[in-house]
Amino acid sequence: MQRRPRLALTMGDINGIGPEVLARTLSWEGLREHCDPVVYGNLEVLRKAQQCCGVEADLKAIDDLDQADDASPAIPVYDAGTPGPVCAPGQLDPAAGDAAIKWVVRAVEDAKAGRIAGLVTGPINKACIYAAGYEWIGHTELVADLCDAPRYRMCLFAGPYRLIHNTGHMSLVDAIRHITPERLAETIGLAHDALTRMGFAPPRIAVAGLNPHAGEGGAFGREEIEVIAPTIEACRSQGIDCDGPHPPDTILAKLRDGRYDALVALYHDQGHIPVKLVAMDEGVNVTLGIPIVRTSVDHGTAFDIAWQGVAREHSFCSAIRMASQLAGGDS
Amino acid sequence: MQRRPRLALTMGDINGIGPEVLARTLSWEGLREHCDPVVYGNLEVLRKAQQCCGVEADLKAIDDLDQADDASPAIPVYDAGTPGPVCAPGQLDPAAGDAAIKWVVRAVEDAKAGRIAGLVTGPINKACIYAAGYEWIGHTELVADLCDAPRYRMCLFAGPYRLIHNTGHMSLVDAIRHITPERLAETIGLAHDALTRMGFAPPRIAVAGLNPHAGEGGAFGREEIEVIAPTIEACRSQGIDCDGPHPPDTILAKLRDGRYDALVALYHDQGHIPVKLVAMDEGVNVTLGIPIVRTSVDHGTAFDIAWQGVAREHSFCSAIRMASQLAGGDS
Repeated sequence: MQRRPRLALTMGDINGIGPEVLARTLSWEGLREHCDPVVYGNLEVLRKAQQCCGVEADLKAIDDLDQADDASPAIPVYDAGTPGPVCAPGQLDPAAGDAAIKWVVRAVEDAKAGRIAGLVTGPINKACIYAAGYEWIGHTELVADLCDAPRYRMCLFAGPYRLIHNTGHMSLVDAIRHITPERLAETIGLAHDALTRMGFAPPRIAVAGLNPHAGEGGAFGREEIEVIAPTIEACRSQGIDCDGPHPPDTILAKLRDGRYDALVALYHDQGHIPVKLVAMDEGVNVTLGIPIVRTSVDHGTAFDIAWQGVAREHSFCSAIRMASQLAGGDS
Repeated sequence: MQRRPRLALTMGDINGIGPEVLARTLSWEGLREHCDPVVYGNLEVLRKAQQCCGVEADLKAIDDLDQADDASPAIPVYDAGTPGPVCAPGQLDPAAGDAAIKWVVRAVEDAKAGRIAGLVTGPINKACIYAAGYEWIGHTELVADLCDAPRYRMCLFAGPYRLIHNTGHMSLVDAIRHITPERLAETIGLAHDALTRMGFAPPRIAVAGLNPHAGEGGAFGREEIEVIAPTIEACRSQGIDCDGPHPPDTILAKLRDGRYDALVALYHDQGHIPVKLVAMDEGVNVTLGIPIVRTSVDHGTAFDIAWQGVAREHSFCSAIRMASQLAGGDS
């Protein structure tokens, strides 16, 4: 019998496309193969989203996580004491931002307490959570902060593109400053550990260079020679199958063609620019370097198309599969 | 009757795939619609490459460019006093690097003198030209140097992806230092002028940001606020249809979808990473900011597959079309 980790699926901002992609996901036939789902969000909103999308799934409200344990086939929906405001499709409502954050906070706490195996987060709107009085740039920073894990890494996974970024939301100048032997070795190690958990044994990891052509032998930039190459060598000596630094503009094709299992990218856009271009719909955000499993859709709230029944669930389903793998599920 | 600019097609390194892609290109039925070609290279090598690829085209040796003017349908092949060494497929031969450079130098001189309308360059091998005693990083720097044009810009064009880079072969740290109002305005102006010559009237130009999410309102990086946005505004006030700064990881999809005609990228890899991933075969390198027309294939000498008859000519044909457009041909 398969191990199915219990995963929290957070609804995100109720006025965006989160409820719709969640509704479609709950009707996805693969759902129960990958997890025992618990929705963190509002039951009535979810039912409306089901109608909007023309999909069905048996739901039940719970007011304590223990109630998710019974043998009922209905999917538990848990508002964690925060029902949220009335739905106002496409509108920026601070109360919706507040509820979205509170569901995530509760899911993180339940994950830290071992009551769930991980969480998969629906989209929130940054302006909306700012308006609600919070200061996190996004889910990644929020979850890392709640876990007291400053050394988190932002990852973007889509099909053969498994990218672990040395840094995330910071200026490019800062990102370059963060390319140190210690931090880069930590990034490579986190990539190795995560890919191993996902079943790659051992994972083959490529490390990108920083400069054009990976510095062309020092002709334009010495970071490859002074920091990146020695760090790769040090990681190899510890048994990690990694190599590089690779020219940043040719390594992605090698990843696509399966010559590596993952790429360590040295700054946010080195990974996000190509992956968002070629794999917009299947992208999954993964946070590594935190003590819990957390994945996310790779799209925003899309207020402009919210509650029209047209949003697609592919990214959410991929995020569930990924969380299940990282949580040690058989899927 | 169409205007067909006379274009120099340089053979590149004779031991790489240059002669083969050139041989195939000379049999391309669209060739004469776009240009009157003059090959700068070795006639015997080209004939061998035709045999290797199983293609035909009538060729004739000339020893002065004036001889290209007669009405003969044969394609003139001009060795410019440098026949080059014996062919040694796949080998790194400094004499081949030397010949490749000399053909380009002569073509640049002929372009500067107005005897040809532009040049389309076949691939050279950097290690090989270093071994021959030259110090240029590549064609772009060579041509800019010969034209005494330090303010050249490296561009990469492939289908809807028309990218003009603010800087090319320099370290990322240096590239960031080069994002100044003066230089960026010049880049935007060069993009506007080139796209106008290519028939976009007026061209719609997007300008990328430097930082993730274009700095997220100053939260991570202030270059967008202090330099990039004001420069865009200044260019707009001069009548250029440009906007931004755009988040670097979403603007490429808008370019693909035709919402812009060109993108100003702020560093080499911001453009090269996505375009090389999605459009490897059709890429054309274009040098702007020089007084002559020069385009190039977007691939190297590929010594590993040279003289096997398998190299493809798509990039060379695209480079000819582009040079013809930039030279004011009707094509």
